[in-house]
Amino acid sequence: MFVAINYISCKEEYKPRFESLFLTRAHAIDRMPGFIEMKVLKPQDQQSDYLIVSHWEDEQAFKSWTGSTEFREGHRRGFQDIEAAKSAGQEPPVTSSFKTYQVLTT
Amino acid sequence: MFVAINYISCKEEYKPRFESLFLTRAHAIDRMPGFIEMKVLKPQDQQSDYLIVSHWEDEQAFKSWTGSTEFREGHRRGFQDIEAAKSAGQEPPVTSSFKTYQVLTT
Repeated sequence: MFVAINYISCKEEYKPRFESLFLTRAHAIDRMPGFIEMKVLKPQDQQSDYLIVSHWEDEQAFKSWTGSTEFREGHRRGFQDIEAAKSAGQEPPVTSSFKTYQVLTT
Repeated sequence: MFVAINYISCKEEYKPRFESLFLTRAHAIDRMPGFIEMKVLKPQDQQSDYLIVSHWEDEQAFKSWTGSTEFREGHRRGFQDIEAAKSAGQEPPVTSSFKTYQVLTT
């Protein structure tokens, strides 16, 4: 099994919006072949990143998703917020980076 | 559901030993009340941390584990390796830190 974690640094004032986007997410990822599950983890320590943890049958399934129309659809509202900040000459409200993992054992 | 992630930085030369300890783990944690599951995630990027991701019914179940004899039993061989390095005047082969999370949504 293959795991991708998106580490998301979120500005304090954007956190309610960020959480609401995930609580009303499009579930576009759920339709991808090889998708197993995802969880959104909220840190207890408010300086730490949110983690979007997704499980996949293999790496190729994950890569197919990041290049898909479902990826763009699933991130549409968040990407609009980032574009709006950019247009207003502001810093993005969230920054993110993926790390990928193999499940060594359970 | 409550999630704890132990972020583990492991010296390159210790990685085979580190992995073998988890592949032959004592399963002491599995006996703890409130334990749901754990996964050991190996980063694809060799500079990144290994993640030990454990799921619990609630935070109290996790805290009970970190103070338990099962915690010491489960970490016995790793703790011995760290002590041996310390006795030899060397840096520890692994360092670790916990972060804790709520599951915001799935």
